[in-house]
Amino acid sequence: MRYDKNWENLYFPDFSPFAALDPQRGIMLMSADMFAPDGTFPKEVKDAIHRAVDEDQLHYPSNAVREEFRAEVAKKLREFNNIHLDDKTKLLIVPGSAFGLFLSIRTLINPNSGDEVINFTPTFAENMNDVTMMGAKNVFCPLHEENGYQIDVDELETYITPRTKCIIVTHPANPIGTVYPRETLEKLAALLKKHDIFAVVDQVFERCVYDGREYTTFASLPEMAQRTLTVFGPSKELRLSGLRIGYVTGPAELIDKMEVATDNYVGLPNPLSLVACTEAYRHLEYTEQWLAILENRRNVAREILNDIPNVSCPLPPAGFSFWLDVRKLGKSDEIVEYLVKEAQVGVGPGTWFGINCEGFLRVMFACYRDDETVYEACRRIAVALKKYQGIA
Amino acid sequence: MRYDKNWENLYFPDFSPFAALDPQRGIMLMSADMFAPDGTFPKEVKDAIHRAVDEDQLHYPSNAVREEFRAEVAKKLREFNNIHLDDKTKLLIVPGSAFGLFLSIRTLINPNSGDEVINFTPTFAENMNDVTMMGAKNVFCPLHEENGYQIDVDELETYITPRTKCIIVTHPANPIGTVYPRETLEKLAALLKKHDIFAVVDQVFERCVYDGREYTTFASLPEMAQRTLTVFGPSKELRLSGLRIGYVTGPAELIDKMEVATDNYVGLPNPLSLVACTEAYRHLEYTEQWLAILENRRNVAREILNDIPNVSCPLPPAGFSFWLDVRKLGKSDEIVEYLVKEAQVGVGPGTWFGINCEGFLRVMFACYRDDETVYEACRRIAVALKKYQGIA
Repeated sequence: MRYDKNWENLYFPDFSPFAALDPQRGIMLMSADMFAPDGTFPKEVKDAIHRAVDEDQLHYPSNAVREEFRAEVAKKLREFNNIHLDDKTKLLIVPGSAFGLFLSIRTLINPNSGDEVINFTPTFAENMNDVTMMGAKNVFCPLHEENGYQIDVDELETYITPRTKCIIVTHPANPIGTVYPRETLEKLAALLKKHDIFAVVDQVFERCVYDGREYTTFASLPEMAQRTLTVFGPSKELRLSGLRIGYVTGPAELIDKMEVATDNYVGLPNPLSLVACTEAYRHLEYTEQWLAILENRRNVAREILNDIPNVSCPLPPAGFSFWLDVRKLGKSDEIVEYLVKEAQVGVGPGTWFGINCEGFLRVMFACYRDDETVYEACRRIAVALKKYQGIA
Repeated sequence: MRYDKNWENLYFPDFSPFAALDPQRGIMLMSADMFAPDGTFPKEVKDAIHRAVDEDQLHYPSNAVREEFRAEVAKKLREFNNIHLDDKTKLLIVPGSAFGLFLSIRTLINPNSGDEVINFTPTFAENMNDVTMMGAKNVFCPLHEENGYQIDVDELETYITPRTKCIIVTHPANPIGTVYPRETLEKLAALLKKHDIFAVVDQVFERCVYDGREYTTFASLPEMAQRTLTVFGPSKELRLSGLRIGYVTGPAELIDKMEVATDNYVGLPNPLSLVACTEAYRHLEYTEQWLAILENRRNVAREILNDIPNVSCPLPPAGFSFWLDVRKLGKSDEIVEYLVKEAQVGVGPGTWFGINCEGFLRVMFACYRDDETVYEACRRIAVALKKYQGIA
């Protein structure tokens, strides 16, 4: 059958071991939804959707609904990101940050033309596929455990060629949770200027930063607003992943093109999603409460996992997941399969996240409303991985 | 700024004349939403969304929610379309038929490789842009007024080259509302087999067919299920355009690839949209009521427009719009601008819909809940177009 050959190369993980999880006992530490599957949502957000349904807002969203959302986002960009919308820097609303990320990468590359895109690994699998789908080349720049998965800008430069069109920066990094200091981002900015390259920065985890760390929005650095497409989304910070809303900021010239393309790719956003997200941005006190719960949970759960002999669990500076080092025990897939059978716990194999990820596991700690469910899963992992090593 | 040069060629209509519409008096016969902006939605559909919100279904949709929607769609495909899902023919749920259409075209072409896609004109503007965005070539096969905008398969064959990858068939056609008889579709099927070409068939208006006409789903013809990607959506028939749900059927080999691509492009569908559409498919009595209203409205409004000297308004066999022939009066853009100023009515210039469309207007009659608003707009158009010609 004749279809685009680029699609032969898409990466799609095989989820088969998880079918063996017992629906009663099994715990999936896999969800990228905070508190899914059993969390409740803020009354204000739910009320906003109820109101919109009562008002029959099931047609294409009105200008008023879109403008209200844009106003909340513009305020948030000003106050949190130090990004100021004007004639030169514009905002595009998209149906989910995944689409925003695809569209941003897509905009900067010419399909099937030998363009290269640099991805740091470990990386988010979609980042690789977004490049592959367009017949561009993924160039992988590894982040090294020994320097805390920080970007080494000098090493990064060795991966740049005349064909490099953009560098994808997931910040905080996913799944490893690295937060990049301003100094690193300034070095990166200088590198982009030197080689005339764009950055696509994915900031969906920007508020999920722990221990009071400083967080710098790359596009707020001098001259970087005109050299960066930044992808944001309320999925993580507002816990509204199912509603498929995201937004992108960048140079007006690119955002204008991306707006026309978005009309063609996907049309207008969902009006119920817009009103829900607008209301959620007015109640960031919930976000603060959730992140306090997660920060504490991270500390407790990490102690359990880091206590396993021959296993190391660094404390993630941000995000929803641990990056568990089980290299001394075996391969990612084997350990994942063992944990499903032995502990009835589902976690992700590191190999989902690119090169230099063999022997790691992604363990999501943001799922389930109740801390204890996550702790129970971590205790089961600990017991199982001791048994795996023949330790009583 | 360096972005994909294909995007220079995207077509985006200039809406400027409509700013002159008076918010009080102005009537926009432009909406592709049935009864927008002032219609109400069925209680059952609204209740389904309220229930889902109360049950906190704002995370990624559960398997159960997705399976319920798939089951309703499978039943509808069997009963209405004579498409039977099995190992060879699969279903993909997508966030809106616009994305389904893009994805289907995208799947069949290799970007920037000289591939050609045949589009009948008048056409839906997105069809052209979906091809342009990928650096493929739009080949336009005009449909002729003198044979009722039917497909002439012999003429179509003259546009086929070794580079032709697919033919886009909007059925019923948009904006002209043509319904193709089974005999034409059978000739088309034979042509596709002869040249080993795929069809992408957009059926979003499949239920909006008037006068008891027979409607044939192209993919239900012998061997065509394996040579067709068919795009469906509840936007028109269920009046749920804002909810951004669509679905695509086609050969398993293609649908499997498209599913991986969809995960990367846009992620999972919105859970509230899924429950609303599931419920709406259980209440097709509303669709029947709406279409009866529209059929009657079409008859009455058409009389008003067809009565204008030197203007012709054929009765559309399907769809939401009239294709008003004002060629004897002037150019599309001039007449649109005149109608805004003189009649305070907004309609679409034919030139939005491709080649051979100059001198036509698209007049949507499906908007507004109240028939009288549409009749009033048509009467104003009639008065204005007489005045334009100096007729008292």
